[in-house]
Amino acid sequence: MAEQLTKRGEDYAKWYNDLVLKADMAEHSDVRGCMVIKPHGYAIWEKMQQALDAMFKETGHVNAYFPLFIPKSYLAKEASHVEGFAKECAVVTHYRLKSDPVHGVVVDPEAKLEEELIIRPTSETIIWNTYRGWVKSYRDLPLLVNQWANVVRWEMRTRLFLRTAEFLWQEGHTAHATKAEAVAETEQMLEVYRRFAEEWLAIPVIKGIKTASERFAGAEETYCIEALMQDGKALQAGTSHFLGQNFAKAFDVVFTNKENKQEHVWATSWGVSTRLIGALIMTHSDDNGLVLPPKLAPVHVAIVPIAKNAEQMAAIGAYVEPVIKALRAKGIVVKFDDDDTKKPGWKFAEYEFKGYPVRIAIGPRDMENGTVEVARRDTMEKQVMQVTDIADKVEHLLQAIQDNLYQKALAMREANTRAVDSYAEFKEEIEKGGFLLAHWDGTAATEERIKEETKATIRCIPLNGPTESGKCMVTGDPSQRRVIFARAY
Amino acid sequence: MAEQLTKRGEDYAKWYNDLVLKADMAEHSDVRGCMVIKPHGYAIWEKMQQALDAMFKETGHVNAYFPLFIPKSYLAKEASHVEGFAKECAVVTHYRLKSDPVHGVVVDPEAKLEEELIIRPTSETIIWNTYRGWVKSYRDLPLLVNQWANVVRWEMRTRLFLRTAEFLWQEGHTAHATKAEAVAETEQMLEVYRRFAEEWLAIPVIKGIKTASERFAGAEETYCIEALMQDGKALQAGTSHFLGQNFAKAFDVVFTNKENKQEHVWATSWGVSTRLIGALIMTHSDDNGLVLPPKLAPVHVAIVPIAKNAEQMAAIGAYVEPVIKALRAKGIVVKFDDDDTKKPGWKFAEYEFKGYPVRIAIGPRDMENGTVEVARRDTMEKQVMQVTDIADKVEHLLQAIQDNLYQKALAMREANTRAVDSYAEFKEEIEKGGFLLAHWDGTAATEERIKEETKATIRCIPLNGPTESGKCMVTGDPSQRRVIFARAY
Repeated sequence: MAEQLTKRGEDYAKWYNDLVLKADMAEHSDVRGCMVIKPHGYAIWEKMQQALDAMFKETGHVNAYFPLFIPKSYLAKEASHVEGFAKECAVVTHYRLKSDPVHGVVVDPEAKLEEELIIRPTSETIIWNTYRGWVKSYRDLPLLVNQWANVVRWEMRTRLFLRTAEFLWQEGHTAHATKAEAVAETEQMLEVYRRFAEEWLAIPVIKGIKTASERFAGAEETYCIEALMQDGKALQAGTSHFLGQNFAKAFDVVFTNKENKQEHVWATSWGVSTRLIGALIMTHSDDNGLVLPPKLAPVHVAIVPIAKNAEQMAAIGAYVEPVIKALRAKGIVVKFDDDDTKKPGWKFAEYEFKGYPVRIAIGPRDMENGTVEVARRDTMEKQVMQVTDIADKVEHLLQAIQDNLYQKALAMREANTRAVDSYAEFKEEIEKGGFLLAHWDGTAATEERIKEETKATIRCIPLNGPTESGKCMVTGDPSQRRVIFARAY
Repeated sequence: MAEQLTKRGEDYAKWYNDLVLKADMAEHSDVRGCMVIKPHGYAIWEKMQQALDAMFKETGHVNAYFPLFIPKSYLAKEASHVEGFAKECAVVTHYRLKSDPVHGVVVDPEAKLEEELIIRPTSETIIWNTYRGWVKSYRDLPLLVNQWANVVRWEMRTRLFLRTAEFLWQEGHTAHATKAEAVAETEQMLEVYRRFAEEWLAIPVIKGIKTASERFAGAEETYCIEALMQDGKALQAGTSHFLGQNFAKAFDVVFTNKENKQEHVWATSWGVSTRLIGALIMTHSDDNGLVLPPKLAPVHVAIVPIAKNAEQMAAIGAYVEPVIKALRAKGIVVKFDDDDTKKPGWKFAEYEFKGYPVRIAIGPRDMENGTVEVARRDTMEKQVMQVTDIADKVEHLLQAIQDNLYQKALAMREANTRAVDSYAEFKEEIEKGGFLLAHWDGTAATEERIKEETKATIRCIPLNGPTESGKCMVTGDPSQRRVIFARAY
């Protein structure tokens, strides 16, 4: 399988697409812009959901479900929101088909909706319209609600996982009595996303704030985590928005505060999507196929017996039985592949390509010696180990792989993060990819000019970056801190 | 809260609707026919999902995700399928909005789709179009795939959970090399649904086969589980379809069999939906509010301290700490409600109304005596218990409640299942509700006549019913077994 994979160095975009298809992660459907998430890809999404959902619940959130459809007039209520989403809305106009003697099945013109319905591109409007009925007093606040759902944003140029018309995500929508509390929630959820990205996906990210022009349509402030892919392009991995009172005002959501006065509610929203699967692939995988961090791998260990006949196969089966038991007792997911219609070499290639973190091979000689051969996917190293305490050893190995993937990605990012001081240097450096730290005068005009001339955008104003007086590399106007530029997905 | 609830005996439909709203399970949204599933309702759905998903995986299934949109021409490919769903399809015709100086935001007429897209009412067509690319040889079979998704069937008369335009469900879609294997899968999944209904929802169900006129559009055979609600009306709680080769033929899905011949693939599909939440409510709940089987209750035990002051509250806190720990160690979900802005009476009413299976109250006297007061929601019985081994006692109590709910529902169904032999008797008995076992001549004409004259439908031909020669109660023609009639949701 790996032989048929385009190399990263030859054509990174083709490598990515090939890998997603050949590793059975996803495929394009016949429906324009929509993907089919195949079982191997969906299993990773399920692991992501479980981990994130637990983190949301630990921070006091509950799940709910709101309608797929948004009346057109709702979307229009918050001015900048509709401006941001109008160009990519799928619109339902009819609710019935009928048979036509000439054209077969046609849309029934008599079943036209009075008001068109938009397939949710995001749910702020329908949710805030609902919250109006849920909030009367400060005692009803905060509302800490999350939704797992599909959303649709009509995209002309799509790429599997990274940009599709329909995608899966979670969207948190919270309502608060004070601005301070809403800001704290926005920052808390950004930190949840950072932890999830770094501890589960093994992707180092930079926490920051978006510039006004990159803000979510309807937000006062958009916080984000930004990651760097192996090809030197940036990827926005999650966003958390402080929405101020914009949606509360648009939908008239007021509450009686402790001083018995009417006030508009404060809002946040935050989301991550199946896009993260794309980020995962582009951060860790290699020319041999997928590489998955153990914490998100659907199967941790593939065990491949190397047997010449049924007798040997049975002996190996007996030999590994306690090994499998011991591994499973630690919560390690094991696949023992004793399918004798496939050769060990085929199995090795398959599990390597699909990113199983650890492969254990066992042959007759191993049984004699009380050993097993253990291969780790990240470094492709093989090692013969005594079978004694093998479950402990594998547990440590999985943790070592998880850590190594993070450290490797971090080293890659650090090697590709550079400070630049002149626009001429910037133009040269941006061609090499990576994060460029540069001074910017804070104006949308300069930001736009840089984007037009270099295709680089300001990924974020880093939250933890040092203040450092300097001059904008383009205009020479004063700047108090460097911001992060990159070309991005 | 319970005082404001309509009594079942007065108006069952209103009782149900009131309860769903007042127990914070769901509400109607402003979008016609669509509901908002509120956190308390959604938490139950999450428990259902976890239990079912584990059962699907135990039987070898994996999850995947297919597009929300179905091109109109796909839906039209299987003739009876499109006929069944055409009248309730939400249709996407455009993919962009634009600003209009006069009318505000309008649908952009230039962004009209060449082919309309249907929001999936069910996914057979898009999935079988995809399977064509996945199946070449018998070695690619079986495909055992499930999807958790939202679907839309435009309904004119909706009822929360029971019938809504959008609902959540799972739909399994499997592909097999032989007819026998597909039939076995259909029956296996029906049995999974029966077990889930009886062991988790505590709802006794009858397994059966639908008559031709009640079959899923596109199926060769529809299997179902049927339940009886407290008002004597039946509710179809899950279906499993043997689809024959209908979809494989419509979408040209062929495989090379072991004899190296080309053959069409055999199919099944099966699903249950958020409708089950409605069934759960209508089976167990009472005039005091929700009653939930412990296995699906989001919280098992509410602990209410009865304290006159902060000092007593602190003492009770210390007293229950080991109790809470011991309960949680058994996987029992506990809510200790020490909110001192609310009175114990208010809390009792709240937890009773929302269906918490067990409530524990603790006051100063309990601390003196080493006791707690334990109330069970199903029978409303209260008991003072020694606090020693209280976790064991509660664990047994939860199991007893689960069992009692099932037995009570079973007794209700048995008391309301009657054999009738004449049509005159049938017309009289059907007014009392319940399942009526009667002979039927097997014709659609008779079935239709009974439906028109009595509003009763054949719920199913029971799988485990005895063969018994008899005469159709309407036509007098011969019949080999009794079938089950009822008025239904």
